[in-house]
Amino acid sequence: MVTRESFHNSIKELEEKMKTMSDLAISSLENAFEAFKAKDVELALKVIEEDEVVDDLEIEINHFIIWLMAKEQPVARDLRRIIGALKISSEIERIADFGVNIAKSTIKIGNSHSLVNITSLEKMKDISVIMLQKGLHSFLDGDIKLAEEVGKLDDEVDDYSSEAYKTITGYLKEHPEETDQLVQLLLINRYLERTADHITNIAESAAYLIKGQMYDLNS
Amino acid sequence: MVTRESFHNSIKELEEKMKTMSDLAISSLENAFEAFKAKDVELALKVIEEDEVVDDLEIEINHFIIWLMAKEQPVARDLRRIIGALKISSEIERIADFGVNIAKSTIKIGNSHSLVNITSLEKMKDISVIMLQKGLHSFLDGDIKLAEEVGKLDDEVDDYSSEAYKTITGYLKEHPEETDQLVQLLLINRYLERTADHITNIAESAAYLIKGQMYDLNS
Repeated sequence: MVTRESFHNSIKELEEKMKTMSDLAISSLENAFEAFKAKDVELALKVIEEDEVVDDLEIEINHFIIWLMAKEQPVARDLRRIIGALKISSEIERIADFGVNIAKSTIKIGNSHSLVNITSLEKMKDISVIMLQKGLHSFLDGDIKLAEEVGKLDDEVDDYSSEAYKTITGYLKEHPEETDQLVQLLLINRYLERTADHITNIAESAAYLIKGQMYDLNS
Repeated sequence: MVTRESFHNSIKELEEKMKTMSDLAISSLENAFEAFKAKDVELALKVIEEDEVVDDLEIEINHFIIWLMAKEQPVARDLRRIIGALKISSEIERIADFGVNIAKSTIKIGNSHSLVNITSLEKMKDISVIMLQKGLHSFLDGDIKLAEEVGKLDDEVDDYSSEAYKTITGYLKEHPEETDQLVQLLLINRYLERTADHITNIAESAAYLIKGQMYDLNS
């Protein structure tokens, strides 16, 4: 059973890499939003720079998976697990990219001030961080309940997103002179909504592994 | 050499499915943009409905790949080819989703008229369709030149996107009463720019397979 044990160790190593990647994506979102709130261009630049680490880690995971498949030739559930890891690491990379997008919008906003309310955007960010933790752990621990919770939280994010959209466009109609920065806020709203969608994809991959069939957690 | 031949046939079958999926994604983009230009809500609804076919095809490809890996246990270049197919089919599914997003924006715009110029948006759509054809064929035919062309076309799309952004926000400042529909145009601009990015990812997967190393065609 040496092979089985070495496979088990490789899976553990793969999962550790995924956890690191998820932590980095959460830092990206948190720091980008902090930079956005504080109009901190330095911090925004740091988020953009550090995204390279996530990109490199995704490539590393891809190579690791190809090596693992060639070496162990996994079948059935093991194979589905590895393909799940491949898909999830690609989703996490995209989530970190949304942090980069928020950071870029922050830089575009620069020092311009606006009185528009951004509470809904902050809620979306907070919920997304919780969703990512739950989504990854539903995959790692095979916990279908966590995957379902992610689906419910995605609905909450969608509601906050509609609210943010109304608030920002309503404000824009009264303040066309603030168009440039308000458009950036609309984009940030979009990035956060998409972040939650990609996390929902992670939970769907987890549910697929657990239940052995495709789940649509958006419906 | 029965195994090798059966593997070769399976790969051909997989590639046919990818071509079908790519054709459907192109139809999604073309029809969505046609609906947008003509304010044709019926056609927009059709785009949204037909996306299910693309989603089902992605699931079918996923299952086919898992079956193929379990059956043939491919290694080295064969394995990289199959993982490339898995990644590319996921990108094509997302590209079709951008067609859906444009269709949804079209429905939100409804009958409201605007005099803002949308030439740059149409250019972006036209170039994206060419990019997708080149990107897929660079993978299927192992043609690195096509992959590099995709990278260059992506730069063109980015330029048109900046132009569209300036045109629309400039117009918005003068016409705040058109905020709702102009915001939808800004989102369509974003969807098209992202479409081109995802197609660039396809070309990068192709280049990875051809050259055996990661390429960043965005830089």
